[in-house]
Amino acid sequence: MNKYINIDDIENVSKTIEEAIQLKQSPFRFHHLGKHKTLVMLFFNSSLRTRLSTEKAAKNLGMDVMVLNVNEAWQLEFEDGSIMNANTAEHIKEAAQVISQYADIMAIRAFPSLTDKQKDESEYIINSFVKYATVPIISMESATAHPLQALADAITIEELKLKERPKVVLSWAPHPKALPQAVPNSFVTMMHELDVDFSITHPKGYELNPEITKNTSINYNQNEALKDADFVYVKNWSSYKDYGKILCQDENWMMTKEKLGNAKFMHCLPVRRNVVVEDAVLDGENAVVIQQANNRTFSAQIVLKNILENLSS
Amino acid sequence: MNKYINIDDIENVSKTIEEAIQLKQSPFRFHHLGKHKTLVMLFFNSSLRTRLSTEKAAKNLGMDVMVLNVNEAWQLEFEDGSIMNANTAEHIKEAAQVISQYADIMAIRAFPSLTDKQKDESEYIINSFVKYATVPIISMESATAHPLQALADAITIEELKLKERPKVVLSWAPHPKALPQAVPNSFVTMMHELDVDFSITHPKGYELNPEITKNTSINYNQNEALKDADFVYVKNWSSYKDYGKILCQDENWMMTKEKLGNAKFMHCLPVRRNVVVEDAVLDGENAVVIQQANNRTFSAQIVLKNILENLSS
Amino acid sequence: MNKYINIDDIENVSKTIEEAIQLKQSPFRFHHLGKHKTLVMLFFNSSLRTRLSTEKAAKNLGMDVMVLNVNEAWQLEFEDGSIMNANTAEHIKEAAQVISQYADIMAIRAFPSLTDKQKDESEYIINSFVKYATVPIISMESATAHPLQALADAITIEELKLKERPKVVLSWAPHPKALPQAVPNSFVTMMHELDVDFSITHPKGYELNPEITKNTSINYNQNEALKDADFVYVKNWSSYKDYGKILCQDENWMMTKEKLGNAKFMHCLPVRRNVVVEDAVLDGENAVVIQQANNRTFSAQIVLKNILENLSS
Repeated sequence: MNKYINIDDIENVSKTIEEAIQLKQSPFRFHHLGKHKTLVMLFFNSSLRTRLSTEKAAKNLGMDVMVLNVNEAWQLEFEDGSIMNANTAEHIKEAAQVISQYADIMAIRAFPSLTDKQKDESEYIINSFVKYATVPIISMESATAHPLQALADAITIEELKLKERPKVVLSWAPHPKALPQAVPNSFVTMMHELDVDFSITHPKGYELNPEITKNTSINYNQNEALKDADFVYVKNWSSYKDYGKILCQDENWMMTKEKLGNAKFMHCLPVRRNVVVEDAVLDGENAVVIQQANNRTFSAQIVLKNILENLSS
Repeated sequence: MNKYINIDDIENVSKTIEEAIQLKQSPFRFHHLGKHKTLVMLFFNSSLRTRLSTEKAAKNLGMDVMVLNVNEAWQLEFEDGSIMNANTAEHIKEAAQVISQYADIMAIRAFPSLTDKQKDESEYIINSFVKYATVPIISMESATAHPLQALADAITIEELKLKERPKVVLSWAPHPKALPQAVPNSFVTMMHELDVDFSITHPKGYELNPEITKNTSINYNQNEALKDADFVYVKNWSSYKDYGKILCQDENWMMTKEKLGNAKFMHCLPVRRNVVVEDAVLDGENAVVIQQANNRTFSAQIVLKNILENLSS
Repeated sequence: MNKYINIDDIENVSKTIEEAIQLKQSPFRFHHLGKHKTLVMLFFNSSLRTRLSTEKAAKNLGMDVMVLNVNEAWQLEFEDGSIMNANTAEHIKEAAQVISQYADIMAIRAFPSLTDKQKDESEYIINSFVKYATVPIISMESATAHPLQALADAITIEELKLKERPKVVLSWAPHPKALPQAVPNSFVTMMHELDVDFSITHPKGYELNPEITKNTSINYNQNEALKDADFVYVKNWSSYKDYGKILCQDENWMMTKEKLGNAKFMHCLPVRRNVVVEDAVLDGENAVVIQQANNRTFSAQIVLKNILENLSS
């Protein structure tokens, strides 16, 4: 593995999930691997879980970690050929090459604008780091993907499934703010890698990028979709077609204990209680969000481990 | 020890002070104790001394440390049952449980509002962490208490006292901003644990919480109170009765070299020179504030050490 | 070495450069030196390269590192005798002494105001730390000097020079914002320590502090100055005479591939493309800015190593 930007950077998903579960049993077993290796974590956006779990994963492997909120430095320029006489003080070409020299691996978080679809889909921030950096790049959530989250999700399903081929439903939920499609995108992509009966339910107009959801069953009737589900992944996202817009705030789409039935409740967190999901679900026995968040450490750790092994080989 | 929120979490104060003084002689002696253990430090408010001394203490014990300014992530919700469609993005129930999985110990700093007495006194922030976290919690100053400071204060008095039962006076001082009662509260509580002749002096209206000061002599005449003092702890606080208000800015309450006499001058820092205390005191030989600040490392270290030993037992 | 504030804190420049180049070959060779030693890095201003390279250097030596953006705490007071009833909450006298107790070495970044020449030249921030701290102080760029950068520059020239006595030209460039003179000041000072044919070119009015440039050839004609140069160091600075002012934004002073000829292009970064220097230079083979930035790690590391050795002797 020489980068982790998208799920297809994983060579063998099921083997990787299995190894992550093993790591969880003995998190310090590969502490020697990271000796004298440095992870630089660069944040263009806020983070709690991703920040702490990724840093923890690196330290479990014995790495040194340096965290930088890019906004504490200055604004970076990503356009080729621009005359930099305005707000941007450093070009990504220099920044990526320079930071590469202080790092063995770089991890980047950079959210979408949700206003310029084409620019967001170009993934210009993370892709510029991939292009100009001279060390492996890990995405800690980019404009259109959150592959560390999706790997943690897959680990969680693997740990908890009670049947060979569980039914997994991704169910849209209302939210007061316009949110990215990164988490659902990567979750959909990951589900296609697992042996699951997968479908999506959301209001009309909330169709995700059809390139990603092709071959996925979509049901506009939430109740029908949820029937006999083993895992229900609840998540808000803003419209992809009417890009970045909030089209619906219908609270009937909120997940309830009644709708959930016996299914396990999944969410990437942070989650707004009684907006996205009612208290009774989160406080009930079927919520697995805490275990899911714990698996963030081991999804990051297996990715870092694979990259470190590749570095030294 | 399985948490440190208040002074009564210490089983044996005098033994703890003694052990802290021993740690100061050989700060790296227990460096093995923290191996593969992580302290997560969460700041809801600014910090200089507490941040650096607590991080240093953890590293002296060989711990990994992760520091997060919560404001860099997002606002947390503390109300049960709230419909989270406004400013808060994550509930403490999830946040505390999740972060617990990345930490072996969590340290929290959360100041009071000074506007809502009942809410501040509920200590809802630190107590919510205690309630929902699954790892030990250390207070790095909460709404009503600063127990790491009080322990450092006690260590300092123990190191410097020239008689069995020194006279210690807590003396209010003026300040341009409304400050919490956390430091004086914990100092008063700690003094009741030591063999000292303790009293408080402040203008009328500045009485601290009577639950805390019961059995403490209060003198509204500063000069009388200071007579023959061995240690004078100077500190501003806002009114407790007329909650969070500044009732007096009389500069006659500022500590001077003349008033101090031969007593040692203590303050938790930061201190406003020539407002709280005149230069001549801070620059004189009787000021012990630097030693006091140094003891912050060892008050944090003995607490962390006791908790780590408890974890592994 | 017991501090590094200015280039004359280096006892033997050429030996130091040689040792830095050796360190670069085996960066972890002295990893034992920093055991149980802590570097506290205090930032009054933004940083990317300096932050990451200095932290990396310290960790290469096995040190613990604590980073604090001072603005996250509160404003410090630097005036003697001031009545601190306004914006400043802690005096440098306390802050420097206190932090010294949590650190074995402190590194400080503090830019000039560019409005009060006398105050900037007094270097009151870094000099106050030198005065009141009880541990060695390293400058990570002060009001008038950037000695870690200049040492990295010297290492780069030493690595790349093709003749005994190369011709080195410092060439002013336009910039939309008023920038400090710290980098050119230290570069000029460093060049006087090396065996180089050194000169400066800039528009009239941009003369640097004559105390620093005495005995340096200054040429107002850029083309003449650049003739047969081996290294061209391009940098904007604001006027020293008309202090902090932008007197010229003539884009004819921008560095171009044509002007540069066969010389190596140097810049401390961040650099504004197509304002300070055209793309063709930065993307061409003669740009050595990435190597120069890499040498920031080893200039910091040799300074830290020398100070650590001095500490333990």
